[in-house]
Amino acid sequence: MKASQFFISTLKEAPAEAELPSHKLMLRAGLIKRVASGLYTWMPMGLRVARKVEAVVREEMNRAGAVEMLMPIVQPAELWQESGRWEFYGKELLRLQDRHERDFCFAPTCEEVITDIVRSEVRSYKQLPLNFYHIQTKFRDEVRPRFGVMRAREFVMKDAYSFHSDYDSLKQTYQDMYDAYCRIFDRLGLDYRPVAADTGSIGGTGSHEFQVLADSGEDIIAYSDASDYAANVELAATLPLSGQRAAATQSLAKVATPNIKTIAALVDFLAVPITQTLKSIVVEGEAEGELVLLLLRGDHQFNDIKAEKLPGVKAPLTMAGAAAIQAAFGANGGSLGPVGFKGRVYADFATEKGADWVIGANEDDCHYTGFNFGRDAAEPTFADLRNVEAGDPSPCGSGSLKLARGIEVGHVFQLRQKYAEAMKATFLDQNGKSQIMEMGCYGIGITRIVAAAIEQNNDERGIVWTDTMAPFTVVIVPMNYRKSDTVKAAADDLYAALQALGVDVLLDDRDERAGVLLNDSELLGIPHRIVIGDRALKEGMVEYQNRRASSAENVAIDAVAAQIQAALHAGQ
Amino acid sequence: MKASQFFISTLKEAPAEAELPSHKLMLRAGLIKRVASGLYTWMPMGLRVARKVEAVVREEMNRAGAVEMLMPIVQPAELWQESGRWEFYGKELLRLQDRHERDFCFAPTCEEVITDIVRSEVRSYKQLPLNFYHIQTKFRDEVRPRFGVMRAREFVMKDAYSFHSDYDSLKQTYQDMYDAYCRIFDRLGLDYRPVAADTGSIGGTGSHEFQVLADSGEDIIAYSDASDYAANVELAATLPLSGQRAAATQSLAKVATPNIKTIAALVDFLAVPITQTLKSIVVEGEAEGELVLLLLRGDHQFNDIKAEKLPGVKAPLTMAGAAAIQAAFGANGGSLGPVGFKGRVYADFATEKGADWVIGANEDDCHYTGFNFGRDAAEPTFADLRNVEAGDPSPCGSGSLKLARGIEVGHVFQLRQKYAEAMKATFLDQNGKSQIMEMGCYGIGITRIVAAAIEQNNDERGIVWTDTMAPFTVVIVPMNYRKSDTVKAAADDLYAALQALGVDVLLDDRDERAGVLLNDSELLGIPHRIVIGDRALKEGMVEYQNRRASSAENVAIDAVAAQIQAALHAGQ
Repeated sequence: MKASQFFISTLKEAPAEAELPSHKLMLRAGLIKRVASGLYTWMPMGLRVARKVEAVVREEMNRAGAVEMLMPIVQPAELWQESGRWEFYGKELLRLQDRHERDFCFAPTCEEVITDIVRSEVRSYKQLPLNFYHIQTKFRDEVRPRFGVMRAREFVMKDAYSFHSDYDSLKQTYQDMYDAYCRIFDRLGLDYRPVAADTGSIGGTGSHEFQVLADSGEDIIAYSDASDYAANVELAATLPLSGQRAAATQSLAKVATPNIKTIAALVDFLAVPITQTLKSIVVEGEAEGELVLLLLRGDHQFNDIKAEKLPGVKAPLTMAGAAAIQAAFGANGGSLGPVGFKGRVYADFATEKGADWVIGANEDDCHYTGFNFGRDAAEPTFADLRNVEAGDPSPCGSGSLKLARGIEVGHVFQLRQKYAEAMKATFLDQNGKSQIMEMGCYGIGITRIVAAAIEQNNDERGIVWTDTMAPFTVVIVPMNYRKSDTVKAAADDLYAALQALGVDVLLDDRDERAGVLLNDSELLGIPHRIVIGDRALKEGMVEYQNRRASSAENVAIDAVAAQIQAALHAGQ
Repeated sequence: MKASQFFISTLKEAPAEAELPSHKLMLRAGLIKRVASGLYTWMPMGLRVARKVEAVVREEMNRAGAVEMLMPIVQPAELWQESGRWEFYGKELLRLQDRHERDFCFAPTCEEVITDIVRSEVRSYKQLPLNFYHIQTKFRDEVRPRFGVMRAREFVMKDAYSFHSDYDSLKQTYQDMYDAYCRIFDRLGLDYRPVAADTGSIGGTGSHEFQVLADSGEDIIAYSDASDYAANVELAATLPLSGQRAAATQSLAKVATPNIKTIAALVDFLAVPITQTLKSIVVEGEAEGELVLLLLRGDHQFNDIKAEKLPGVKAPLTMAGAAAIQAAFGANGGSLGPVGFKGRVYADFATEKGADWVIGANEDDCHYTGFNFGRDAAEPTFADLRNVEAGDPSPCGSGSLKLARGIEVGHVFQLRQKYAEAMKATFLDQNGKSQIMEMGCYGIGITRIVAAAIEQNNDERGIVWTDTMAPFTVVIVPMNYRKSDTVKAAADDLYAALQALGVDVLLDDRDERAGVLLNDSELLGIPHRIVIGDRALKEGMVEYQNRRASSAENVAIDAVAAQIQAALHAGQ
């Protein structure tokens, strides 16, 4: 491609709206352009990158035996009502009505449509397993779209759906997809980790996220320093403590804590270590009107996903209202505790072996010191109520946990029979008996990968692409292309030679100053740059620089194409 | 691709909902599957065809210098309000609100978004011309979606938009796009005609449609039998007649025509030739409360697009209401005419030279015979009010017109400054003066092409693809693949050989009866079929049949791959 026949539009400064490096760089390099909140145009330079990601994803999906199709974006409410998701899905689901006032949605995922297709196509176990995928524009009406295409409302996703006659077959395909995802992210040159994850609104049992490691990531990953264990912090389990409980050394004493409403203020006021305090969270129970008290150490972070799964706790997790709390505890939030509370009490594992706690006294502006489980209130049920922290023992039993931030770029789910059961996707087994199918689903955020890769690969000069994802693999920057005939001839010849080798090369023939061309090539992150100037050319040389190298080297113009081709093959 | 790793699902009978051959065949061959009215899933077999069309379109757009990008599907109302289309577009525009109750639409075309981008990117005439395109899912909320993907609500379109500093530059790019479209439809092997067309709701001046000729087409094309002239029948002009008007031979006489409301009934009742009757159409005038009378020959077809453009006629064309007609004419529809009418009267060119007309008498249940222009009412303004008919002189001045039906698969427009003016897309010219850009737009219905091609290429056995569009170019049909080791070995070897030659080959290794495999290969329309059976194999032969040939021929198995490759190259 010649730049004069393409469209390059770079900015010196990123618009103020951009926070993340990837968002700033995508705007500055002209990869995307904002249309409205969470809606972007992929400009020519950006689309080339997205298409390269798409091509790798397609190749690896095909290699893994998935078959490509294309489902519609606008989907009828009836199917979503059948699965139950029409009610369950919140405002993220963009709902719309057609001219006949029939309800539709703009699909965020396609479990319903694919299940509808498969239940009408499949009669016998002989037709299973099946694994379909498509690459399609999706919409999720995020409350707060941000970070450019990282959390956009409209985005391109590859989603695959597999159907099986039994769980073993699902597990096999799940593993195949897991392996394909690893190949995809390896080929794209991303530093990532597959991590165990919660299944969220998609439903089902097992699930892994593929997280690209980046400080700006919205997700936190916990991983073992001594094994392969990795999980989303939402999911990583904390373990019960071993050993004996510390002996009580204090008696229960009520202390006045006027206007003390937070743990930080309490610790400050009483001059006690935060690890000696307990905080109380009150949620609604499963039974109408019942409240459940959750206790955890003042310094620990409450995990609502874990809490929601406890017996007797209402799902989705619902915080108790002020009036109900006042009625049950005789006090307001900020001074609550288990002493005298009649309902069900869960305490976090980390509190089981401690003694002499500071805790709310169920009387406004009062706390207890010297609170001990069993002595001052009944023994609670100990459970996992908190997020893991760095240094916690790994739940795999080996090593301790470290934390890292990640950007979720892929997610695989064992849906099991959630959709197949609701939508009656059945088949006849070997004995002619009707059975419900097993199902898996597998997503990759094509457009998000572009942002994630930049987040992980950039420097003060701009983006640093891998050969696989770069919009162009090589850029030829001629000095004075429009004035020097020898430079023009050499540049044109080299361009033709690289094209003949099948190299994706950009000849930057724009009528701009040398500084602009060089800066743009770095901002755009083209991995291999060849600068052609009159002086070196007299000695048959050009200047070659890898985007990741700190300086350029002189290479004979006759040798540079072969050298680049060799570098590209070596990198594959 | 091996069929066992793909997904083939054919039907013996088409569902009753399908009317057109293409719709029936696409459902029977499993190319598409209905999700809801006008919404289809592209099944794996169908998607392969759509992707092949897309690839040809992309290649030719790139070759013609257009640059690919990708605009969002969901677009903010503000931009559409700026162009005026938010108000102007009817219910075909799918409107929706996001969670914050802001208005958006699901884009049917993208003039607004691209104009917004270009006005922010372009400052100087030096940056022009520009020509961007994208291939994207569109939505038009058709009143009556029908014929499968031929008139679906959701469909894939390639749309391109060019921007220019002057009209000459627009005309140049318009011609480049016109030529690129011809190359695209030539390569796809379609029998098509570029025809002059109306610009409709898109607006602008010049426009051509690309019509695939097919009896089932919804459009009618008029073309000259002696020149290249072709136009949509909506647009093709009729010419004023030459020569003298016939002399009046009858005097005006009122006749009772009780309950005669239609031309057909009138002709029958009075036993006059229909060509001697005039029909009256009353529309609203530009001025409030004014009515305009339009007269044309009883046998001619009224053309509302032409009528709407007449001076003094309200656009969009609005039929007069019954009360207004009664007030102005003193009679109801069915007995109207110009005698005594005070308003503006247009009569079709074809009536100018006639005499002694039968026409409504402006008195219910009465008509006049012997009506003559100039004598019985003032001379009207003669104008082009009707559709052309076969045999009319061609408006190009050469030959006479023939009519054919067509399916619109492409449309190019000279938009001129319609959008650029409304949205203030300006640039600085060579004198530093701000000017409004010129603009063109260019669409191709990717998914509709698939249906149009089938409409034009099918027989009683199924679809007949060209090599370019076929989901697979070659199919190998082994007889007893799962039982005969020699057949399996020969089929596998041939499959590998064809793949090595880069041929897109399907090995139908399904465990089905020979009849099923052979019928499916014909229904699916694969252009080249190789049948491998034990008997012929003993003599080193296989059976080759071109889908368009009436019988098969025996070919040496060692020669068949080379023979097919030669045929494919010859066809390119």
